[in-house]
Amino acid sequence: MRISIIGAGAIGLLLGTNFSMSGHEVTMICHRREQAERLAANGIHYIGKTRKNVCIQASSRLSAEPMDLLIVAVKSPHVSSIIEQIHEAYRGGFSPDLLFIQNGMGHIEQLSTLSQNILVGVLDHGAIKRDDVTVEHIGAGAIRVSAFTGLPNDLQHLSMKDFPIYYEKDWYQMLARKLIVNCAVNPLTGLYRVQNGSLLTNARFYAIMRELVRESSRVLGLDFEASLNNVQSVCERTALNTSSMLADLNAGRSTEIDAITGFILKRAEVSGSDVPYSRFVFESIKGLESR
Amino acid sequence: MRISIIGAGAIGLLLGTNFSMSGHEVTMICHRREQAERLAANGIHYIGKTRKNVCIQASSRLSAEPMDLLIVAVKSPHVSSIIEQIHEAYRGGFSPDLLFIQNGMGHIEQLSTLSQNILVGVLDHGAIKRDDVTVEHIGAGAIRVSAFTGLPNDLQHLSMKDFPIYYEKDWYQMLARKLIVNCAVNPLTGLYRVQNGSLLTNARFYAIMRELVRESSRVLGLDFEASLNNVQSVCERTALNTSSMLADLNAGRSTEIDAITGFILKRAEVSGSDVPYSRFVFESIKGLESR
Repeated sequence: MRISIIGAGAIGLLLGTNFSMSGHEVTMICHRREQAERLAANGIHYIGKTRKNVCIQASSRLSAEPMDLLIVAVKSPHVSSIIEQIHEAYRGGFSPDLLFIQNGMGHIEQLSTLSQNILVGVLDHGAIKRDDVTVEHIGAGAIRVSAFTGLPNDLQHLSMKDFPIYYEKDWYQMLARKLIVNCAVNPLTGLYRVQNGSLLTNARFYAIMRELVRESSRVLGLDFEASLNNVQSVCERTALNTSSMLADLNAGRSTEIDAITGFILKRAEVSGSDVPYSRFVFESIKGLESR
Repeated sequence: MRISIIGAGAIGLLLGTNFSMSGHEVTMICHRREQAERLAANGIHYIGKTRKNVCIQASSRLSAEPMDLLIVAVKSPHVSSIIEQIHEAYRGGFSPDLLFIQNGMGHIEQLSTLSQNILVGVLDHGAIKRDDVTVEHIGAGAIRVSAFTGLPNDLQHLSMKDFPIYYEKDWYQMLARKLIVNCAVNPLTGLYRVQNGSLLTNARFYAIMRELVRESSRVLGLDFEASLNNVQSVCERTALNTSSMLADLNAGRSTEIDAITGFILKRAEVSGSDVPYSRFVFESIKGLESR
């Protein structure tokens, strides 16, 4: 398959490496020309159980060349500008299937402006971008995809034993379940500066996490107990991980709090629902960002 | 006046120094014999605008010797054991007036077991105990006292220009006003690891502080706007201070969260009132303490 990946952060580089290693023709599309040039020259340096160097193509702009799948792996706030570029590149011509992999659900409304077949995906791999061409795969996981519009595109042939892709029937349930995990784990690990496992081992932190799960599952219409079980199992599996939000705060970067807890606050406001615990972490993370 | 001070922490040492310097006969009563011996041998080393060494008497136990005023300057959790010692020492005999200086209102119920004239006090001096015999006076303030039982004992002759003591008519208003300040400032500075002034300059932190003031003033029956104004003015005056709760967390000590936010939670539970922001900070500080 010819696969282009927009966004060469940790997730984009991880996908690029794995799809290239299984024989697909991968092009990374980067925001910065410098990164594209380095990737085109050096490939991706992958640090997993072993170290590998993987050849890929790279470009700093999306062109209308034929491809089978275009994966959008940028952070949620950048999705709207990517959608504009997609409109521009494929105006009236051939157009690949699209797969959007973002945290939260803030980007969902924007997808309806596109006429392509659209898949949405979530993933729970742990990955860290070490530099522009280096990604470290610190926790094995899975990718889950679901059809947002159009026919369910079968990505079974992309799935590998070590890098599985699962198909889910209901995109809303899939994204909402992941969003609840993010709402519970990310802000609290950032605020308390702890690894994910502390939210289970520290009874006080757990009590607050429970309230966040209660609020977000209520707002999103998912079952509370099932959501809490899911959050707990993610915390167990990723106990020693530093969440992306804690990493962002430590590095002085802005976080994904708008796409995560911010989405819950907006939905709660529409329905007139009170979500004080969510508001507490939202304002706190925003405050810590601006320090 | 013959003044005994139970508790040789930052506040106790500060009071001892100032009352001794203005000619009163001061005895410090310490929990640890070692500290009492060092204080008796060396006096208190005071670091203020100038450095001074102040002679005082010191003991590691409360005796029934005649005195005019006994000041209890221990942290709130230790008040109950001090009250037992007072009962023991003054069983049936002469008994001085008592002044209790604690944060929060958790100790108030216990005071009614005492038959003496009782004053309660709050203070907003900044003071840090550097070692067992050294106190640094980092922020000038005032002491406020009010009669809890008995006749209002006039402490005017204890008041000094640089170390004023103000009398207040209503002990409940006085303690509740101070408690609201502590509920707003202490947990948030501890959680965000910032100095007091950040709660005013960071709009996100301010938004959460406002909610804490709203909850605690509602629970305690004080006016919200007046309480918020008071909290703001304290934050302004102490902008560069590290709150005692942040200092306690940094040093790995337990904090006064039970006496502060814990009191609000108990009162809210009795009245069936919902205080999610207060509960958030309570559980968070408890969780950070136990790390």
